[in-house]
Amino acid sequence: MVPRYSRPAMTAIWSPETRFGIWFEIEAHATQALAELGVVPESATKALWDWWATKPQIDVAAIDAIEAVTKHDVIAFLTWVAENVGDEARFMHQGMTSSDVLDTCLAVQLARAADILLDDLDQLLEVLKRRAYEHKLTPTIGRSHGIHAEPVTFGLKLAEAYAEFKRNRERLVFARADIATCAISGAVGTFANIDPRVEAHVADKLGLAVEPVSTQVIPRDRHAMFFATLGVIASSIERLAVEIRHLQRTEVLEAEEYFSPGQKGSSAMPHKRNPVLTENLTGLARMVRSATIPAMENVALWHERDISHSSVERYIGPDATITLDFALARLTGVVDKLLVYPARMQKNLDRMGGLVHSQRVLLALTQAGVSREDSYRLVQRNAMKVWESDGELSLLELLKADDEVTAALSAQEIEEKFDLDYHFKQVDTIFERVFAD
Amino acid sequence: MVPRYSRPAMTAIWSPETRFGIWFEIEAHATQALAELGVVPESATKALWDWWATKPQIDVAAIDAIEAVTKHDVIAFLTWVAENVGDEARFMHQGMTSSDVLDTCLAVQLARAADILLDDLDQLLEVLKRRAYEHKLTPTIGRSHGIHAEPVTFGLKLAEAYAEFKRNRERLVFARADIATCAISGAVGTFANIDPRVEAHVADKLGLAVEPVSTQVIPRDRHAMFFATLGVIASSIERLAVEIRHLQRTEVLEAEEYFSPGQKGSSAMPHKRNPVLTENLTGLARMVRSATIPAMENVALWHERDISHSSVERYIGPDATITLDFALARLTGVVDKLLVYPARMQKNLDRMGGLVHSQRVLLALTQAGVSREDSYRLVQRNAMKVWESDGELSLLELLKADDEVTAALSAQEIEEKFDLDYHFKQVDTIFERVFAD
Amino acid sequence: MVPRYSRPAMTAIWSPETRFGIWFEIEAHATQALAELGVVPESATKALWDWWATKPQIDVAAIDAIEAVTKHDVIAFLTWVAENVGDEARFMHQGMTSSDVLDTCLAVQLARAADILLDDLDQLLEVLKRRAYEHKLTPTIGRSHGIHAEPVTFGLKLAEAYAEFKRNRERLVFARADIATCAISGAVGTFANIDPRVEAHVADKLGLAVEPVSTQVIPRDRHAMFFATLGVIASSIERLAVEIRHLQRTEVLEAEEYFSPGQKGSSAMPHKRNPVLTENLTGLARMVRSATIPAMENVALWHERDISHSSVERYIGPDATITLDFALARLTGVVDKLLVYPARMQKNLDRMGGLVHSQRVLLALTQAGVSREDSYRLVQRNAMKVWESDGELSLLELLKADDEVTAALSAQEIEEKFDLDYHFKQVDTIFERVFAD
Amino acid sequence: MVPRYSRPAMTAIWSPETRFGIWFEIEAHATQALAELGVVPESATKALWDWWATKPQIDVAAIDAIEAVTKHDVIAFLTWVAENVGDEARFMHQGMTSSDVLDTCLAVQLARAADILLDDLDQLLEVLKRRAYEHKLTPTIGRSHGIHAEPVTFGLKLAEAYAEFKRNRERLVFARADIATCAISGAVGTFANIDPRVEAHVADKLGLAVEPVSTQVIPRDRHAMFFATLGVIASSIERLAVEIRHLQRTEVLEAEEYFSPGQKGSSAMPHKRNPVLTENLTGLARMVRSATIPAMENVALWHERDISHSSVERYIGPDATITLDFALARLTGVVDKLLVYPARMQKNLDRMGGLVHSQRVLLALTQAGVSREDSYRLVQRNAMKVWESDGELSLLELLKADDEVTAALSAQEIEEKFDLDYHFKQVDTIFERVFAD
Repeated sequence: MVPRYSRPAMTAIWSPETRFGIWFEIEAHATQALAELGVVPESATKALWDWWATKPQIDVAAIDAIEAVTKHDVIAFLTWVAENVGDEARFMHQGMTSSDVLDTCLAVQLARAADILLDDLDQLLEVLKRRAYEHKLTPTIGRSHGIHAEPVTFGLKLAEAYAEFKRNRERLVFARADIATCAISGAVGTFANIDPRVEAHVADKLGLAVEPVSTQVIPRDRHAMFFATLGVIASSIERLAVEIRHLQRTEVLEAEEYFSPGQKGSSAMPHKRNPVLTENLTGLARMVRSATIPAMENVALWHERDISHSSVERYIGPDATITLDFALARLTGVVDKLLVYPARMQKNLDRMGGLVHSQRVLLALTQAGVSREDSYRLVQRNAMKVWESDGELSLLELLKADDEVTAALSAQEIEEKFDLDYHFKQVDTIFERVFAD
Repeated sequence: MVPRYSRPAMTAIWSPETRFGIWFEIEAHATQALAELGVVPESATKALWDWWATKPQIDVAAIDAIEAVTKHDVIAFLTWVAENVGDEARFMHQGMTSSDVLDTCLAVQLARAADILLDDLDQLLEVLKRRAYEHKLTPTIGRSHGIHAEPVTFGLKLAEAYAEFKRNRERLVFARADIATCAISGAVGTFANIDPRVEAHVADKLGLAVEPVSTQVIPRDRHAMFFATLGVIASSIERLAVEIRHLQRTEVLEAEEYFSPGQKGSSAMPHKRNPVLTENLTGLARMVRSATIPAMENVALWHERDISHSSVERYIGPDATITLDFALARLTGVVDKLLVYPARMQKNLDRMGGLVHSQRVLLALTQAGVSREDSYRLVQRNAMKVWESDGELSLLELLKADDEVTAALSAQEIEEKFDLDYHFKQVDTIFERVFAD
Repeated sequence: MVPRYSRPAMTAIWSPETRFGIWFEIEAHATQALAELGVVPESATKALWDWWATKPQIDVAAIDAIEAVTKHDVIAFLTWVAENVGDEARFMHQGMTSSDVLDTCLAVQLARAADILLDDLDQLLEVLKRRAYEHKLTPTIGRSHGIHAEPVTFGLKLAEAYAEFKRNRERLVFARADIATCAISGAVGTFANIDPRVEAHVADKLGLAVEPVSTQVIPRDRHAMFFATLGVIASSIERLAVEIRHLQRTEVLEAEEYFSPGQKGSSAMPHKRNPVLTENLTGLARMVRSATIPAMENVALWHERDISHSSVERYIGPDATITLDFALARLTGVVDKLLVYPARMQKNLDRMGGLVHSQRVLLALTQAGVSREDSYRLVQRNAMKVWESDGELSLLELLKADDEVTAALSAQEIEEKFDLDYHFKQVDTIFERVFAD
Repeated sequence: MVPRYSRPAMTAIWSPETRFGIWFEIEAHATQALAELGVVPESATKALWDWWATKPQIDVAAIDAIEAVTKHDVIAFLTWVAENVGDEARFMHQGMTSSDVLDTCLAVQLARAADILLDDLDQLLEVLKRRAYEHKLTPTIGRSHGIHAEPVTFGLKLAEAYAEFKRNRERLVFARADIATCAISGAVGTFANIDPRVEAHVADKLGLAVEPVSTQVIPRDRHAMFFATLGVIASSIERLAVEIRHLQRTEVLEAEEYFSPGQKGSSAMPHKRNPVLTENLTGLARMVRSATIPAMENVALWHERDISHSSVERYIGPDATITLDFALARLTGVVDKLLVYPARMQKNLDRMGGLVHSQRVLLALTQAGVSREDSYRLVQRNAMKVWESDGELSLLELLKADDEVTAALSAQEIEEKFDLDYHFKQVDTIFERVFAD
């Protein structure tokens, strides 16, 4: 976890206090179920919840000190609780194994993390939608291979991002359901010493599903899928970040990250406004993505379980979720305040002497009866002249002066092919598809 | 693609013939929609489908030869079709761009690949279920950290695998839906020169969803999610493969890959029966997983598109699907024919002198009013003697001879804790959870 | 292996014929050493080499047919050789294990692959050097964050690439030495049935070092280091490819991939010249890099060995080396024929109204006694005006009209700061550093 | 950075105090060189070093507060130094750019981190060597595919690890040299405003090489190679950790991690001694390895530089070095105190009824004139009987009772093949190879 790439709410999920709090709830709910089943006295439950109702401060240092001796975190925690609650606490954890607590806790943490990420996505989607509609018909050049292709609108670019993050939202909902399971099944998952109804009770209270079959641990394919999904979302962040970085290039400059008054771009070049937020997002995306492979390597635990996954999760659990939360919020801010320059977009659109309309002319020639190969040749020979003039010559003028072209198309017919609005007639259709729900 | 790790049906999906066949269908369906819209003559459609009805041999070499000149694969293909169909073919591809064909084709290929993989999973699930019920109550030792823990049944191990692959099946259904979209939207996705109804028609004919907003290409977050899902499935394969490799170890030998009569395990050591299939699966899992990161790196295409994703997909499209298909089939075969040795399982269960029952004794002591710490100490001091005797001493006998223990529990109460069936009383419950539907 | 990204010499290394040829040489050299040690008759050696001198065609299909029965590749090969050489062949492979042949063969293949890659790097370095000197003093704008910074020369950009690939060459020499070892040590590496002098002899004949301690297999950390090194080289390819893609953007257009006469950039937009080769290299880099993790996962073989590494190596051995060979050659071609546009570079340099000289003015003000903060403020307020004018205003003129600036610097002093050559005075120094030796 | 997987010396390298301290040294050395060149007054140097000689406390919070306004870390630092040193500080940083400081500082940090890791490796090597000699001739079964193969010694296993980590040491020395360069070359690396002799001076003082050509930043292929090397070392750690985990399995139990008196293996099963340290190392290896790909993705910075690498390095710089340091130290401790059980090794060796000697018998038969195929068949039919008896039958006895075998070999000849020492005759040779120098 790197503090500068962290936000409080997500970071709090991974604090020792939160973790121990969840552990307590799992143990207390389990004890309650055991009491209802008559396995432990009702007084044990009462003692636990009464103490909890006092909102006790969790003494992490004290628990750590016990763990330093026992070298076992759950035993250390139980010992500390017993010191505080008293004798009745001995009924806690009956028939349970450490992983019942650890894995169910991790499920709660990841589910809560997913909820924050879903909120993040919702805010990003809202901002993307607003700005997409704002620039629904702002003309800009569409580029493939970094080369001018045909006109699009800036709103379409944002609609694409919206659709992509909406897919990501659906994926995260799916991954959240995958991860949010509860296992209270004992040392090797057989419920030898604990009734499955305890598991069902705890699951219900914590808003989790019951893990159909566990082996002491919740199977790690669930976690692998979860972190892989975060990796996909991160990759989408990278895509939009790279787009903005491109748009802010000196030669393009169609959009710019918001530049706050006190900000200095460079110690040496005071005029520079660098897309540092989106460059930063590019790097953060790499980090979130890098959790994917270790999470997948964690799946193949030995037999009923080994503990090789644990250290990995101590890193990637906090790191991937905290970083992704930060990145989504940063991206939302970037899009929200993005400086958009329609005039410059128009200027760039015009700079190629009308080459962006060549496709329409090509089609018109074909439809006028010229063969595909000849049409291509006619357009290309004029297009090449424009290209070599660096946009000084006009494709429209050249075509109107080309006898072979005018043999097939009238000057007016050619001119009609250079109409920008022609390209935007389906923008409404696309917006309806993307934003409908 | 490595031939020895390939099966014909999946490999065929990636052949040039299949690809060109799908291209033709996309182009012909699009032409048909264009004809219905009155953009091109109905005769064009007829010419295309009439030719296709002759089941023409696709001449890959001829198409490649044209591409060598044009350096453009779709133009080469269209040229070749025109050479065969004749003049009417010039109406093909009107208003379309190459990626309309390429990306929709890839969607068809990946959807078909997913269908094969879903069949593979169904067969694996069927085999896992059969063998799980066969060994539903075959006792075997459960191990955590590679160390004996408490009894489980071999059927439970297979039930766990079943549940895991059933989750994988659901994930693949989800990923298939993600990938199966059709884009026919022109050079930058604006439908400038083609009606969206063409896209809808082609999508319908090919069993795809309509891509809500494309940019010449179908966005690559879809593919990233798809390949990441294959990576998760591969990791589950690795888990089961590693389990079987462990079980076949000389010292464990609770199960063995089927050993065919002519097979030689080693050129030097004729007695060896090596778990080579599952070792092989471990490596294949690494390969399938390795497609995940490049697929994620492919997401951040520049602006409306660049072509950096294409070479990556030429590798991982075939490699990941073909390898996973092979691996699933191999794993199904391994499980189907797995030699299972219940007698050896029982022998291993017994070898620790009853230590596996220590947890039950611990609980019984606690329930009899001994403090948690004392209970632990009592069990541990006897358990350690058994451990150090390498299983020669019996925990049961030691406990019955320990005065502090017998002060809390009678000999009969202690003996009851060493009953194996006690551990299996919830196996039915678990099987119902796992195999219900 | 994808044929279109493959070149013959590298591909040939991975053919079955080459592999079996190397196997034969290993076996024959080993037999010769055994004969010299008196373990087998000299006639055995003679029979093998006499047959080999006839340059026999290796019948891959026949060997495969035997393997289909024995399920063991080395036994199949030995059987086939025995069928051809006759009875004397029975002395082959004495005291050896299959991996002695397989791993030593892989070492030979990877060493040969490294030699081709070193040649590729030499050719790339040569081309980079030539073009770097050609453009040693061609002015172009240096960019950080995609934003104009200060002038550099195009030759410097190529010198940077040269230095980077020279480092890569050194790394590959190091990695080649790491991989090029010979192990002939028997079933578990103890030389129980074979004298270490056999290993020394074979190593010497094949140009390999002796593996100090093997375990049946050559340890896989060597291979991990090798493939990781290929991954680094690939990443450098990506860097240069991305640079060229940027330079070819419509708005930048300072350089362009060579465009052959018959080439069509797009089926729809005939004017387009897309940087498809460098986009392709970007994708190929991802693929070479993706071999790194599986190669690292291969290191942790169980005990003396398992065979999980083998399937991975069947993919990445050929794929990573063939793809990298192709990519290096493609990059060499791109650089060799790169169309460079100095006039456009100058035009871009000039488009920012002299902002690129702001750093020099800042320094001059500081040296003239203005505080760092004031200097920054003075330059920044004028720079902002230029920036907002989109390069229409001139920084030089604004500064000369700013009273606070002229209070510290004369008009002539200001003008001197706008001299382009000032920036290039150390280009010779840098070139000497980079190209020395 | 996860505190429990961190050690103080390595962690200190990455503290803000250390970083700012290195920044100061770079700036002060550079100012000194500028003074020697007459660019700035000598008094500036004196003021800086005089202040530094007072061992000032670096006020991280104050610097952070300035950065919160300027949003630029180096400017914030310089401002804070100026507040402390006074007016003379304005001569600092003349002609330099932020990255001159940042990248040279990172080089110092990584070089120092490498030095600690080299020390770690030395300690691990020492321990491996000591324990290898201790068990040089301790017989144990060699296993391939997890199946008993032929005898080795436990010392050989450790010698293999020694050789592997010695290679890793060499790789790290190579990678350290790659990373340890100094760049003080200004805004785009042209030395426009700073003399290259400043760079040479700073490099000399900090023990770094001069970066031949930089572009504002030190090229990131160096860092990619560095982190890839750490990934290889981590993979070797995983290999040895997995070996120990296997040896500690209940059924194998040939070695065990040291078990401290207060340690509890499980909350539920008091007899358990789990290999938790080596399982932990397996996970930590995955994490170190996961830095490789982001480090490689960092190479392709745009043009002269972008800042996408920075956030990645804020994670992996500390995480990969701190985790690897911790893991090497933990592994050293595990090997140092490893409980080795020679009696159990011998018991395991004997359990297969002599099958491990089958290879020797096979060879003896061949040498006695039996064909390879017949020899194989004879050994295999007896071996299979032993195998199926689960080690109850003795291969030696069966062979002596097999007429076809005794037709070729006398009983005494057969018995000679079952001598364990036969396998260890080259252990001295191997140890000399591995431990020489």
